Amino acid sequence: MALTDAQQQEIEAARAGQAPSRRPSVPALEAVLFEALPVLDHGFVRVIDYMGDDAAIVQAARVSYGRGTRAANEDRGLIRYLMRHRHSTPFEMCEIKYHVKLPIFIARQWIRHRTANVNEYSARYSILDREFYIPAPENLAAQSSMNRQGRGDVLEGAEAARVLDLLREDATRNYDHYLEMLNEDDEGAARDESRQGLARELARMNLTLNAYTQWYWKTDLHNLLHFLSLRADTHAQYEIRVYADAMLKTVEAWVPMAFEAFRDYRMGAVTFSAQMMAILRRMLANEAVTQETSGLSKREWREMMDMLGREA
Amino acid sequence: MALTDAQQQEIEAARAGQAPSRRPSVPALEAVLFEALPVLDHGFVRVIDYMGDDAAIVQAARVSYGRGTRAANEDRGLIRYLMRHRHSTPFEMCEIKYHVKLPIFIARQWIRHRTANVNEYSARYSILDREFYIPAPENLAAQSSMNRQGRGDVLEGAEAARVLDLLREDATRNYDHYLEMLNEDDEGAARDESRQGLARELARMNLTLNAYTQWYWKTDLHNLLHFLSLRADTHAQYEIRVYADAMLKTVEAWVPMAFEAFRDYRMGAVTFSAQMMAILRRMLANEAVTQETSGLSKREWREMMDMLGREA
Amino acid sequence: MALTDAQQQEIEAARAGQAPSRRPSVPALEAVLFEALPVLDHGFVRVIDYMGDDAAIVQAARVSYGRGTRAANEDRGLIRYLMRHRHSTPFEMCEIKYHVKLPIFIARQWIRHRTANVNEYSARYSILDREFYIPAPENLAAQSSMNRQGRGDVLEGAEAARVLDLLREDATRNYDHYLEMLNEDDEGAARDESRQGLARELARMNLTLNAYTQWYWKTDLHNLLHFLSLRADTHAQYEIRVYADAMLKTVEAWVPMAFEAFRDYRMGAVTFSAQMMAILRRMLANEAVTQETSGLSKREWREMMDMLGREA
Amino acid sequence: MALTDAQQQEIEAARAGQAPSRRPSVPALEAVLFEALPVLDHGFVRVIDYMGDDAAIVQAARVSYGRGTRAANEDRGLIRYLMRHRHSTPFEMCEIKYHVKLPIFIARQWIRHRTANVNEYSARYSILDREFYIPAPENLAAQSSMNRQGRGDVLEGAEAARVLDLLREDATRNYDHYLEMLNEDDEGAARDESRQGLARELARMNLTLNAYTQWYWKTDLHNLLHFLSLRADTHAQYEIRVYADAMLKTVEAWVPMAFEAFRDYRMGAVTFSAQMMAILRRMLANEAVTQETSGLSKREWREMMDMLGREA
Repeated sequence: MALTDAQQQEIEAARAGQAPSRRPSVPALEAVLFEALPVLDHGFVRVIDYMGDDAAIVQAARVSYGRGTRAANEDRGLIRYLMRHRHSTPFEMCEIKYHVKLPIFIARQWIRHRTANVNEYSARYSILDREFYIPAPENLAAQSSMNRQGRGDVLEGAEAARVLDLLREDATRNYDHYLEMLNEDDEGAARDESRQGLARELARMNLTLNAYTQWYWKTDLHNLLHFLSLRADTHAQYEIRVYADAMLKTVEAWVPMAFEAFRDYRMGAVTFSAQMMAILRRMLANEAVTQETSGLSKREWREMMDMLGREA
Repeated sequence: MALTDAQQQEIEAARAGQAPSRRPSVPALEAVLFEALPVLDHGFVRVIDYMGDDAAIVQAARVSYGRGTRAANEDRGLIRYLMRHRHSTPFEMCEIKYHVKLPIFIARQWIRHRTANVNEYSARYSILDREFYIPAPENLAAQSSMNRQGRGDVLEGAEAARVLDLLREDATRNYDHYLEMLNEDDEGAARDESRQGLARELARMNLTLNAYTQWYWKTDLHNLLHFLSLRADTHAQYEIRVYADAMLKTVEAWVPMAFEAFRDYRMGAVTFSAQMMAILRRMLANEAVTQETSGLSKREWREMMDMLGREA
Repeated sequence: MALTDAQQQEIEAARAGQAPSRRPSVPALEAVLFEALPVLDHGFVRVIDYMGDDAAIVQAARVSYGRGTRAANEDRGLIRYLMRHRHSTPFEMCEIKYHVKLPIFIARQWIRHRTANVNEYSARYSILDREFYIPAPENLAAQSSMNRQGRGDVLEGAEAARVLDLLREDATRNYDHYLEMLNEDDEGAARDESRQGLARELARMNLTLNAYTQWYWKTDLHNLLHFLSLRADTHAQYEIRVYADAMLKTVEAWVPMAFEAFRDYRMGAVTFSAQMMAILRRMLANEAVTQETSGLSKREWREMMDMLGREA
Repeated sequence: MALTDAQQQEIEAARAGQAPSRRPSVPALEAVLFEALPVLDHGFVRVIDYMGDDAAIVQAARVSYGRGTRAANEDRGLIRYLMRHRHSTPFEMCEIKYHVKLPIFIARQWIRHRTANVNEYSARYSILDREFYIPAPENLAAQSSMNRQGRGDVLEGAEAARVLDLLREDATRNYDHYLEMLNEDDEGAARDESRQGLARELARMNLTLNAYTQWYWKTDLHNLLHFLSLRADTHAQYEIRVYADAMLKTVEAWVPMAFEAFRDYRMGAVTFSAQMMAILRRMLANEAVTQETSGLSKREWREMMDMLGREA
């Protein structure tokens, strides 16, 4: 990530300001407010604003006149109860706003989460930066032979070198041509007065899907946790998981009780089907169940053994 | 509105707290934060929390690294442009949370706005207060003879007195029976140990629709303005319009530029159909158009004359 | 449930019509289309329209040009896979529309599900029917002493009789007064010309929460299953659960493969927290874990034992 | 648009099937059901399924037991009234599902409409087709000098030729490299056994934004009309407007009364601000208002003159 000096100064200026407020304030989140937390080679996540804290969850659950909190362990117990029993509405009472810079192909996954507010930098209106995501060598994975949408071993040697060259050259060339077609005074290039220049809304189509875009993205805590449960999961694509991981840290700073409950009852939780529960009861009664006697398909049996941390 | 002493003290305690924050703060809204703004005979609206300000709209529209604002008149111009052309997403970047006490039949209208977060006081779990909405005499309107869902003249004399008696007696009696069926130690009544008491989730069904409920209600500025454009409108039922009016004042304190743009381009705006536009052009060309020569139905012609402030 | 003759004839007329369509059609659901399935004493659920079938889920998951289905067992496998791994978007491709008659206090729970389309019969505009929900004696439950929002034993003898009398008398009297205040030519009552009559939007506030309302309610299969997983659950209030149960039967007729997957992976599924999973592994390794050695609170330990079908 | 023979046969097979249904059926829409309506050079829109018709709007507005319709002109009047007064919920009772093939940069605009259900062809899982959008020469527009997100004159001669070459060459080369990196047996290319092949979820990042993707997209009539009012508007980018235009024709076939009302009260309608209304009244009173005496900014005055079809 390389912020320009002007961008860095704007961030510093924003961080320098402070005002008193009657609203609940969270020092651990204030500490990183506005800061660009680096993700991938040119991306970042910045917390721009937030509303509420752990106490706001309790306050809404109790529909209270004051802050609504009692002893800390009582509040913690209530938050854990709400999380465990999927009473989601009190978590919707906290809101957070991020500024995110991310590759377009990741933005396309991300935007599928509909319950958020988004303002994206418009390439109809402005010129995108010359920045593309090029994977670090250790993330240059082969197609998985097991899973049609997963990754296998890391590419090595000549194959890896060739892939990195292609990605870099194609993105760079296409970006150069984008600027040429635009024919504007920008990025140091002088305009060729003999040409009109192609409309921005058309020229952008020549960019590659690893070009970076950016947006403001705002959502409530319930929907954020749902997003993170899917995107910080090991089945998520690495390039979106690193964003989710960075955001998880901001959630931990912001609402530590809700974060702890989320970790225990959602991220670390395991769901067994009706059939798996019947098998589990047989196993607890000391029956030696096998795939053959389980009634499960091989695939589901393997999934169940994974869930129990056993060999299939 | 009669808050209990305990409620009033909780509010005062919350108002007394203050903490420094890097987030944008709006002094005019902070001034009324947590205060119960009275609405109807027992209702209120309280601002519990907010995120963002006029500058946050500009900042999101520009996807900026810092505060994103320029000269005040430039920001104002951008906000007016966004409102005029219905670019709604930057307005979604501001969020506000209210605590509202309101009659159940109004809550049922209000909840139809789906793009909000809600935590309602649960009558499955708790006992509702002994409070019912009884209209002030000047709001005791007859059915409109023109409009199947509107109001006509105010009731007077014996009819008005009878209506007020019925509303008051039926609500009170039903509430007394609610408490009797519950048979709990509550509201000063001692429990009758010979009876089990009916489940709260059942007993509540005996209450009348003018009983008061309360909720935390949170939404973004775009959806709030949409709500207000419908509910502060003259066609809205009086009993919800007074809530919308109270909220409009909080919006004016919070985001004065957005409020001004909303007033000019939404509340005060008038939309003409394709057919009306053709008539308008004829009128501007000094043709004396009548309903008969307009091609409009009598109903639409009357609507158009209303829009122009003329006699139909 | 007592439909009027006119209503019954309208339904029969609608059922009599048939037209050929290229759209997928589901005979088992067509068989009950438009029919009023009785729920509670005066309520019903009617399927009014539907879009898609099991094959439409498969078709969307495959983004196919034709029907997208293969062998039935392959389709079933895909649907089960999608349900198990919470790939919810293909289930959103099926849509269903119901006409529901239900008590207002249940409508208030139901409407909290926001991802649906709703048209409710308007008491601002029309006069509600003289119908109130009065529980059958076996559903007249006491407040639970264990669970603040649950039910305990059934009321008996004099207490039950008194409760039923109160509910019936209060609802009836309030409805009579509602008609008196309206003072319209309706329900056989002649209008008193000496009185104006109160506006409908005001008079309705005198009704009790067990009065029946009705609405058209439309949602997609994914959101319907989420609704049913909460409302057909044993923790849901009985009076909404019976609606969910009636709707479950229509889902089984409509999309039998999705229904089966839902039953196995959602309704019959059990989720263990991170801490519970650690305990489960100890139990499978033949350790005799007790609440004391589990690290769980008494409440969570009891929940876990329930999940395993054991005594706490 | 070039469908493969297999795709064309799948479509024909789907069109050949027919079944009787009690649901309302719309022959004019059935006539084009499943057919690929061509858009741009390789794109299309196909209607896959629909629920409801004009009568379903009326039926929901009346919450009726039968079909709910009366005389055709009464139904038409009600639909026009609902549209004019923005009573949107009855329009939500109709639903439609499309299969769309479109360039990725257009998909990114489209997906911003959040109130829809979407299943997109996954490039994590599958290989995208070798198809890119290359504008027809008459759509190769220069950047507008007036409007930062609009188009100006059409490019000509050498500049146009160069732009078309760049777009074609870059898209083709990047696609070739995409296949090379994938190293799969696909599209006639034999796999190089000495290389592992890059994971699909990574290789896709080398594609250009004019590559075609496809999705199933389902929404209700209210939200569809909102989408069309924005995307069939003259301010929308040409490449999405052609999709909106194709969909408008399907709406006209499907719900002709709602379409007519939409055309009159939404597409052809004009909204004047509070300030513009004051000016309009002065003009109707024969005052010769100029920009200087109007109180409007030059920009808004020009907008108002445009709305009235006058020279600014």
